[in-house]
Amino acid sequence: MNSRTDRLNTILRSLQSGSPEIEASALVSDDGLMIASALPQHIDEVRVAGMSATLISLGTRATSELAMGGMEQVLIKGEKGYAVMVKAAEGTDLIVLTTAEAKLGMVFLDMSRAANEIKKIL
Amino acid sequence: MNSRTDRLNTILRSLQSGSPEIEASALVSDDGLMIASALPQHIDEVRVAGMSATLISLGTRATSELAMGGMEQVLIKGEKGYAVMVKAAEGTDLIVLTTAEAKLGMVFLDMSRAANEIKKIL
Repeated sequence: MNSRTDRLNTILRSLQSGSPEIEASALVSDDGLMIASALPQHIDEVRVAGMSATLISLGTRATSELAMGGMEQVLIKGEKGYAVMVKAAEGTDLIVLTTAEAKLGMVFLDMSRAANEIKKIL
Repeated sequence: MNSRTDRLNTILRSLQSGSPEIEASALVSDDGLMIASALPQHIDEVRVAGMSATLISLGTRATSELAMGGMEQVLIKGEKGYAVMVKAAEGTDLIVLTTAEAKLGMVFLDMSRAANEIKKIL
């Protein structure tokens, strides 16, 4: 029935199973509504969606004001890990949360592949 | 006379001369006031300071809401380059703008070294 959602969830779950450092992943719309997610219980879905939208909108403003062209990626590093967002299909953004030990190059590579798969579905 | 400012400017200039991909660098306070900078003419100092403060404050909120510990780094990638911010001395943030071709690992390494030098001065 709901095959697009199923396929998106499969992409997010395989993103996480392939990279143990990725603790949570979600696909949100540019206005902060959750499209699909694979989040651990202690992370609130609504909060992740809202933060993603805020970060994307700020990233877009920063790239515009600093004449950096269209926004492609936002990364925040905290003591306990990373939050990384990349543009996925038009109007949608893929966000992942990782542990502090994550290898960023690998995370970017896996996210880029997942974003390309998402573009084929949406 | 103004030896602290001179030493900070020297750190920023040598950060840029050592990495040709780094096009601009600035040290700002957490509330967005410029402390020292090495910016090309086409980039407005006030705008960079304001954007830095906004990004740092949003990065701090994101790490707090997502339980990621203290904010350490913010990176925005646009089509034409990167904006990277890291915590420097207490209450100050180092921001650099790079070309799209920059090797991120090298940029992070050089910024971390510059931030450590800044901590010795401030």
